[in-house]
Amino acid sequence: MVVVGSVAYDGVETPHGKVDRMLGGACTYIALSASFFTQPKIVAVVGDDFAQEDYDLLASRGIDLAGLERVPGKTFFWAGVYSQDMNDRETLTTDLNVFATFDPKLPESYKTAPYLLLGNIQPTLQKAVKAQMNSSGLRFVGGDTMNYWIADHRADLLKTIAEWDFLLINDSEARMLSGENNLRKAAAKITSMGPSTLVIKRGEHGAILWHGDTHFMVPGYLLDDVFDPTGAGDCFAGGFMGYVAGQGLDLRGGKVEASELRRAVIYGSVMGSFCCERFGVDRFRTLTRREIDGRFEEFKAFTSF
Amino acid sequence: MVVVGSVAYDGVETPHGKVDRMLGGACTYIALSASFFTQPKIVAVVGDDFAQEDYDLLASRGIDLAGLERVPGKTFFWAGVYSQDMNDRETLTTDLNVFATFDPKLPESYKTAPYLLLGNIQPTLQKAVKAQMNSSGLRFVGGDTMNYWIADHRADLLKTIAEWDFLLINDSEARMLSGENNLRKAAAKITSMGPSTLVIKRGEHGAILWHGDTHFMVPGYLLDDVFDPTGAGDCFAGGFMGYVAGQGLDLRGGKVEASELRRAVIYGSVMGSFCCERFGVDRFRTLTRREIDGRFEEFKAFTSF
Repeated sequence: MVVVGSVAYDGVETPHGKVDRMLGGACTYIALSASFFTQPKIVAVVGDDFAQEDYDLLASRGIDLAGLERVPGKTFFWAGVYSQDMNDRETLTTDLNVFATFDPKLPESYKTAPYLLLGNIQPTLQKAVKAQMNSSGLRFVGGDTMNYWIADHRADLLKTIAEWDFLLINDSEARMLSGENNLRKAAAKITSMGPSTLVIKRGEHGAILWHGDTHFMVPGYLLDDVFDPTGAGDCFAGGFMGYVAGQGLDLRGGKVEASELRRAVIYGSVMGSFCCERFGVDRFRTLTRREIDGRFEEFKAFTSF
Repeated sequence: MVVVGSVAYDGVETPHGKVDRMLGGACTYIALSASFFTQPKIVAVVGDDFAQEDYDLLASRGIDLAGLERVPGKTFFWAGVYSQDMNDRETLTTDLNVFATFDPKLPESYKTAPYLLLGNIQPTLQKAVKAQMNSSGLRFVGGDTMNYWIADHRADLLKTIAEWDFLLINDSEARMLSGENNLRKAAAKITSMGPSTLVIKRGEHGAILWHGDTHFMVPGYLLDDVFDPTGAGDCFAGGFMGYVAGQGLDLRGGKVEASELRRAVIYGSVMGSFCCERFGVDRFRTLTRREIDGRFEEFKAFTSF
C-alpha cells in the first residue's frame, strides 16, 4: 500500500493542553494507522530539520521510507487552536516550506503495489502519482481532498477522482462537491463522478459507506476525553485502507464482500478514536493490535440489536 | 399508556412549503406515533376552536380522548420557520391561549395505567400528574423537558425527574442539564439524578440509550427529503414508549432484557423518520405497521456488520 501526502510538524492547542512542535501531517497519521494492518510505503518530503527520532518512529512501525525525500530547508509546519468543544479549530500558522515544491516521485519498488491512498494534496499531483503506478496490478485506488481544492481547483479535481475507486471525505466536503445538502443525494452525485465506493466521515457522528446499491452507517465512538482531534480523519483513512490492504481485497477484480468494506469502516472508526486519546501521534507509540480488536468488538456491542 | 402534553395548532414554513395552521403539539405527535404499538390515553387541553376532523383523526387511531379537556378560548398556537438546511428554526409566534392555565386532571380510568409519558410541560405539572397515578401499578415512568425548564426551573425539574425511570432529551439539553460537554460524562451525571434509563436524541445524527452499565448507539435514518422536522423528537418518544407499552415491559419489576430497550430505540427512530416525510402529522394518516416494520429491518440492514 502506497500513501502520498504531507509529513509535517504541528503546533496544537486544545482545552487539554498545548504542544509547540510535534510530528504530524496527513501522510504520517495515515501510515501510522495503516501500519497496524499492513506495511505502508510513504511518499512525502521533509526538510533537513526532520528529527531522527521521528524517522525512527515511522521505521519502528515497519513503514517503508524509500519514498521519504529529504531536501534542504524546513519541514512543513502547521499550527492551530481548537475551540472549547473541539468542534472548530482556527489555523494560526501554515508554513509550507519544502512542501511548497513537493513533486512526488515513486521509487521503482513502489510501482507494483496494489493499493494507493492519495492524501489531501493538489489534485494534479494526485493524478500524476497515480500515473506512475503500474495500473494492471492495482486493486483499490482513492483518496481524500478538501474544501480548497473543491472550490478553486474543481476541474482538476473532477479529472483526478474520475480515475478513483473510492473517495473518503467529510460531510461538508461531500455537500460542497455535490452541491446537494441531503447526503443521500450528495452520495448519488459523487458516485456518478467516478468513485464507486464513497466514505463520508462525520467527525464525532461517525461515518457512512456507500458501495453498490447499499449504504452502511456507523456512529462515532464516545470517548471519555478527546485530547486532540488532529489527524483523526487521516487515521480513519489509514485504518480503512490498511484493513483493505491487509486482507488483500481486490475491488477492481470485483470479488469483495460488502461485509469486508463494512469491517474496514469500523477499523477506520477505531483508529480515528484512538488517535484522539493523546496529543499528536502519541497514542500510536503504545497501541497494540489487541486493543484495536477489542475496540472493534466494542463497536459491535454498542451498535447491535 | 398515559401521555400528557400539548395539543396545538402549528404554522410551519420549511424549504419545501408553508402551512398556516395544522394539527400539532407534543402530545398529539407522541400519541399518534405510539398508537401504532398500543392504545395511548391522552391528557391535554384544547379551546372551542378545536376542529372535529382533528378530534376524529385522533379517535380513528384508537387514542383514548377521555382526558382531552375542551374549554372556552383558543387552542395553543405555535408558528415557526426552518432554515434552509433545517438544522435551525426560528419561532415566530407562541400563543399559549388555553394552555396557559392547563391543570392536568387524570380521569379515573387512566390512573391504573402502567406507563406514563410526561411530555415537555412545566416540571411541577409533570410531578402533579405522576402523583395522581396509582403508583403500585406503574411499570415505566418518564418524559421529556427543554432548555427553558433546565435553566429557569432547575430545582423543580430535579425534584420531578428524581421520581422518573427514564428521561428522553436532546444532546444540547443533556449538556445543559449535566454541565458536561462530553456525552459519556453527561449521561453518568444525569442517571445519578434519578432516571436509570436515558435516551439522548441527536436529531439527524440518531440517538444514544444508556441503561444499566452499557450504552447503545443508532445513527439517524437518511431520508431522501425532509419535508418538515416538526414533531420528530416527540414521534421518537411515542415510538419508544409505545413499543415498551405494547410489549408490556416491566422496568420497575426489573425483568427487562436490554435488547428490548434497544428495539424500542429503533422503533423511536423509525417513527421520527416517518414524521419528517410529510408536513405536520400527515404521514400518520396513511402509515401502516407493515411500513414501520419494514423500516425497522432497514435499520438492521444499514447498521450491521
